[in-house]
Amino acid sequence: MGIVVNLKEDKKAHPTIDTLALLVKDDLKSVNRLISTRMNSEVDLVPELASHIIAAGGKRLRPMLTLGSAQLCGYQGDRSIALAACVEFIHTATLLHDDVVDSSDLRRGKSSANILFGNQASVLVGDFLFSRAFQMMVEDGSIQVLKILSHASSVIAEGEVLQLTTANNTETGESTYLEVIKSKTAQLFAAACQIGAVISNRPPVEEGALETYGMNLGIAFQLIDDVLDYSASQVKLGKTIGDDFKEGKVSLPIILAFRRGNDAERDFWRRTIKDQDQKKDDLDHAIQLMEKHDALLDTIKRARHYGAIARDSLGIFDKSPIKTAFDELIDFCIERAN
Amino acid sequence: MGIVVNLKEDKKAHPTIDTLALLVKDDLKSVNRLISTRMNSEVDLVPELASHIIAAGGKRLRPMLTLGSAQLCGYQGDRSIALAACVEFIHTATLLHDDVVDSSDLRRGKSSANILFGNQASVLVGDFLFSRAFQMMVEDGSIQVLKILSHASSVIAEGEVLQLTTANNTETGESTYLEVIKSKTAQLFAAACQIGAVISNRPPVEEGALETYGMNLGIAFQLIDDVLDYSASQVKLGKTIGDDFKEGKVSLPIILAFRRGNDAERDFWRRTIKDQDQKKDDLDHAIQLMEKHDALLDTIKRARHYGAIARDSLGIFDKSPIKTAFDELIDFCIERAN
Repeated sequence: MGIVVNLKEDKKAHPTIDTLALLVKDDLKSVNRLISTRMNSEVDLVPELASHIIAAGGKRLRPMLTLGSAQLCGYQGDRSIALAACVEFIHTATLLHDDVVDSSDLRRGKSSANILFGNQASVLVGDFLFSRAFQMMVEDGSIQVLKILSHASSVIAEGEVLQLTTANNTETGESTYLEVIKSKTAQLFAAACQIGAVISNRPPVEEGALETYGMNLGIAFQLIDDVLDYSASQVKLGKTIGDDFKEGKVSLPIILAFRRGNDAERDFWRRTIKDQDQKKDDLDHAIQLMEKHDALLDTIKRARHYGAIARDSLGIFDKSPIKTAFDELIDFCIERAN
Repeated sequence: MGIVVNLKEDKKAHPTIDTLALLVKDDLKSVNRLISTRMNSEVDLVPELASHIIAAGGKRLRPMLTLGSAQLCGYQGDRSIALAACVEFIHTATLLHDDVVDSSDLRRGKSSANILFGNQASVLVGDFLFSRAFQMMVEDGSIQVLKILSHASSVIAEGEVLQLTTANNTETGESTYLEVIKSKTAQLFAAACQIGAVISNRPPVEEGALETYGMNLGIAFQLIDDVLDYSASQVKLGKTIGDDFKEGKVSLPIILAFRRGNDAERDFWRRTIKDQDQKKDDLDHAIQLMEKHDALLDTIKRARHYGAIARDSLGIFDKSPIKTAFDELIDFCIERAN
């Protein structure tokens, strides 16, 4: 008789990030303490603004990736704490600069820092957090970690610039879009995971596996983020629906709907996205067109593809609670779109 | 018979930066080549914008400080080239962010990058150059240099934030102003000089002397810059006169004129600087008040004080052409106000 294999033994009906959060709970508390110590400055406005955005929370997904990767590699020590804080500082710096670039009003459901404190302070406090991250990496002392994170930072900036050049451009292709999200989002996910292996002195194959996991998880995460901007409630997302549409951001749902659309539909996209001439019901119509062409569903399908690559990259690691949590995290990142 | 000592043997009637420029000429050419190679990116907008601001020129004062300090320390090698380029990248990144923060229209007499390319690109290309600088430092591999420049970067950002909080505040005191210019300008001058000694493996006393030289030269330089905004022609400066006044920037000439002024004069400053209610002839009146209270002359006197400290810090070095050039540079930075 054959053995009955439950292919879904690790799959949960409602995947959450909590499994991972629980496994790195103590370390994450230390990360949060370190974050609040190191964002301090004698210039009061610096911690005021930094704590506004950092305390606003977010899931601390990226530092959890560093802590989880270190755990997966059997790391014993506390370097992961400081480096996880560095990763969060770099992320926060890019958020602050993003909000200025996007002229956002809301971030995680709260007024974004640029609205409360002004664009000027957001740019400068972003610079401060970025510099502070490098100071902390220098204190850690690993040239390899510095190399990974300085490379990631420069790729992120390039990705953001590339994204600027695609804004309002309805002709943007899927490969350019993919390049944008790999650079601006996935590169930091990849770096966050990779340094967990680096500080554990694991062989290149494990370092590479974690980098691949982070990169593909990051791509899937951003694809779903872009779907959510057309489907989730403001409460759930912590931001207004249709922000991307309003800004003329050309994400995959628009790329697919545009390419699959007829002439009249393309004229609609050109008017609303390229010419930024938007009327009251345009967002509803945009969503209808996306549904007509399965643009949202197929974006989720693409995310599943990258999720599958992330999942397979974990194959070389032995079964462990943290491996299961990393696996569940992939599903969490994707299924939140449903 | 006594010996006739010419106290001014090294003093020139018209001090220039050219003496220094000539001594580091070949290295500076290599720096410029490296700058143009390393600001490249597959994202075309990055080198387009970066070259706009970097090619606009400026004097390359900061990289010359690194090259000159290395020469003063007898350095033989080429690490100074890459590190001088790092210093210029960090400086350029802060200029790009400054222009966004100040909403400047002109930089070095050309339309500033934020006007030509938009604030968004200026923020992001600044981030790119900053990250690229760190990548190049990591390639150099010295944790000590990384420490100096990551510290400098974070202090610069803090100084810029502090400056924001003094904007339009006529009550700002001289010590706060000094703190601002030490952080936002002088810290990078100090770091640029210090790393010249670090890569030469010179003893702490020489490293400290060069740091002191850079710090005090930087303070003097910024004091004079702030004077020039009320006295030099746009052609000479490469920027509009009265920019600081228009923006409500509280620099030392205003601080002195305000503190030395009578009630009516203080009301004038409050209206124009604090309330930003400016009329056609207000700039002229502001300059008259500064002249009445010797505010510009005394700011130049303060600059001479810091220049003297910079000069004395060079005392431990043997006489050499580069030492003479560094000495002349102090006079150049200050006398350009006359």
